Amino acid sequence: MTDPLSPHSVPGFRFAGISAGIKKRGGLDLALISCDADAAAAGVFTQNIVRAAPVELAHQRVQAGVARAVVVNSGNANACTGAPGTQAALDSSAAVAAALGVAPDLVLPCSTGVIGQVLPADRIANHADALVAALGADAADFARAIMTTDRFPKVVQCPVETSTGEATLLGIAKGAGMIHPDLDTGLPQATMLAYLLTDARVNAADLRGALLGASQVTFNACTVDGDTSTNDTVLALASGVHAGIATQASLRRAMEQVCGELARLMVRDGEGADHSVAITVSGLSSSEDARRAAYTVATSLLVKTALTGKDPNWGRLLAAAGRSGVRFDPNQASIHVGDVLICQHGMGLGADAEARATAIMKTESYGITLSLGSGPHAFTYTTCDLGHGYVDVNAGYRT
Amino acid sequence: MTDPLSPHSVPGFRFAGISAGIKKRGGLDLALISCDADAAAAGVFTQNIVRAAPVELAHQRVQAGVARAVVVNSGNANACTGAPGTQAALDSSAAVAAALGVAPDLVLPCSTGVIGQVLPADRIANHADALVAALGADAADFARAIMTTDRFPKVVQCPVETSTGEATLLGIAKGAGMIHPDLDTGLPQATMLAYLLTDARVNAADLRGALLGASQVTFNACTVDGDTSTNDTVLALASGVHAGIATQASLRRAMEQVCGELARLMVRDGEGADHSVAITVSGLSSSEDARRAAYTVATSLLVKTALTGKDPNWGRLLAAAGRSGVRFDPNQASIHVGDVLICQHGMGLGADAEARATAIMKTESYGITLSLGSGPHAFTYTTCDLGHGYVDVNAGYRT
Repeated sequence: MTDPLSPHSVPGFRFAGISAGIKKRGGLDLALISCDADAAAAGVFTQNIVRAAPVELAHQRVQAGVARAVVVNSGNANACTGAPGTQAALDSSAAVAAALGVAPDLVLPCSTGVIGQVLPADRIANHADALVAALGADAADFARAIMTTDRFPKVVQCPVETSTGEATLLGIAKGAGMIHPDLDTGLPQATMLAYLLTDARVNAADLRGALLGASQVTFNACTVDGDTSTNDTVLALASGVHAGIATQASLRRAMEQVCGELARLMVRDGEGADHSVAITVSGLSSSEDARRAAYTVATSLLVKTALTGKDPNWGRLLAAAGRSGVRFDPNQASIHVGDVLICQHGMGLGADAEARATAIMKTESYGITLSLGSGPHAFTYTTCDLGHGYVDVNAGYRT
Repeated sequence: MTDPLSPHSVPGFRFAGISAGIKKRGGLDLALISCDADAAAAGVFTQNIVRAAPVELAHQRVQAGVARAVVVNSGNANACTGAPGTQAALDSSAAVAAALGVAPDLVLPCSTGVIGQVLPADRIANHADALVAALGADAADFARAIMTTDRFPKVVQCPVETSTGEATLLGIAKGAGMIHPDLDTGLPQATMLAYLLTDARVNAADLRGALLGASQVTFNACTVDGDTSTNDTVLALASGVHAGIATQASLRRAMEQVCGELARLMVRDGEGADHSVAITVSGLSSSEDARRAAYTVATSLLVKTALTGKDPNWGRLLAAAGRSGVRFDPNQASIHVGDVLICQHGMGLGADAEARATAIMKTESYGITLSLGSGPHAFTYTTCDLGHGYVDVNAGYRT
């Protein structure tokens, strides 16, 4: 289901990814999703108040609930670029709209890459016809063209239950650094970009409702480095070419599955990371407390470096929860790595338990659970280890 | 003033630092401050709800406003050690009290090191007589014996104005990792330990008032890794052997100077760090907003890795402020590295300015200022770069 090399498609949509000379080092950097007809559309966007020009424009355009295309460039975030940046977003999306023969307002722009440089709109305009000519049913080149520091493309597909059988939900995302989404789901969520495409029939309001609900427990519950981006954008489009109508509930179930796996893949691909780790905090009296404690543990540098060291350092885990601002009795705390209990009643269980936990910590993906009391609420935050690779990528990113 | 190799002393206090076999790799690990008579005493402690046994005990004992001694061990934090840990803190401080010939309640215990192992109280008891026999006027061995991952001892001295001339304030601290103090100053502040000793005459209430005020703008405004420790403790003792009485205001001035420099030294000695950087956010409408924005920039991994790369990446600086939750107009933002303006009206000023900023970023200590509006409030948070050294220290700490 997540093999990006196998063909992925969804009825009503065509995809392209080409090279337009935007990335300094070359490679695919201009991508397009085109709907054959008007699609229902919804979006959630970064809550960082420093928002890139394409975020402002896509946010404004998606309000209409309808779209025909999504144009994405990598290599340049077009963030902190003032009026010239806004003009570049308008010009580049207009050029793609003209090549597609659709109204500019129906084209949603996204950018990801270096902050502080105006997008070279002329390169996109010069490649608009070639981009449209490259459109085809398979999403593979699209998924590759939106990558920046990603080591692998991220494509996930699952069925959506409708009134007349199963439709498809296809999710495509990029993101490896500046990953700590804080999307405006109405509740509190790098550059991550994600696209959720379905052929099911669904109205824009239900599409948006499903997207907000699913984002809050998936994208808004994952972190690489704690740095919420200026460009985070998740767009959902429904072509409606399937005969069946999807309910908000059935669409949300499919979205939670697809977005959850895309979030895990982004974290697994976290810059320099070798592991994705699901941090669950349970036993608290509110879900807000559980989210806050899980967030604090998931973003702790001492925890993330312990994950790199395959060190079941329960003291760091417990200390991170202890500074979260959430009240609990440390003497009631217990901690599992996978299914191995390493801390009970706030105290360690010794070297044998820790050796078994270390074996689990050598695997690619695993879970850590902190049970902090007898309350009914739990929350899971997905994080990764922090190693030398992260420093290499980010201490030399612009050079 | 900060040369730890020159003799540092303050009338009324004697110091010792010896090896008691607590650190796995040997070295000085048991330290003592002894007052020749009852000293006025005050303390501030970590707000992490996971608090080590010695923190609980010192907190309880310092309420009396009087103390005779402070005993510190490095190599073992005695945190998350339950009832056996509490007993170890009681037993070890009682042994030192007996060797000094003072009541146990007058001895304030502190521990720093690995979490989750019960302090070997017998080793401290067995070395109590040797510890007392080593007492002398110079604080150098004390400053070395409290170190854990520190690369250098931290001692700062300055005069205190009193009713009859100048007395002395001597500050001694340790701390390099798990540094993000959140001391209970009544306002919102790793393991850091700091001791502030004066010969001035001051009552315990004024001593505490000065300590709270000074800690809030110094220790509580510095960070290495964002991880507030289970063991952070700052103790202030006044021997009163000087003839002059210090006011709370004069003592606070001296404390702000000494604590500010100790905080800067801890951050400069941050695990794997090469720079201490004062992040100032100005132009906001409240000091809480200024603190929150400065904190968010100072703890951003993308900012800290850019500091390692000597990269004046103003986009990351601005994006971090933008996710802080503080409202400002990004188009009004300007950013200086040292005295070099690199961003104005929310946009970059180009390669020449950045080259001059990079030259400043190669120096050991410098400042970065983000002016986010026209409001009257500013706050400065001291942070360090995050490099490979931090990963090396923390991915392998217990192994």
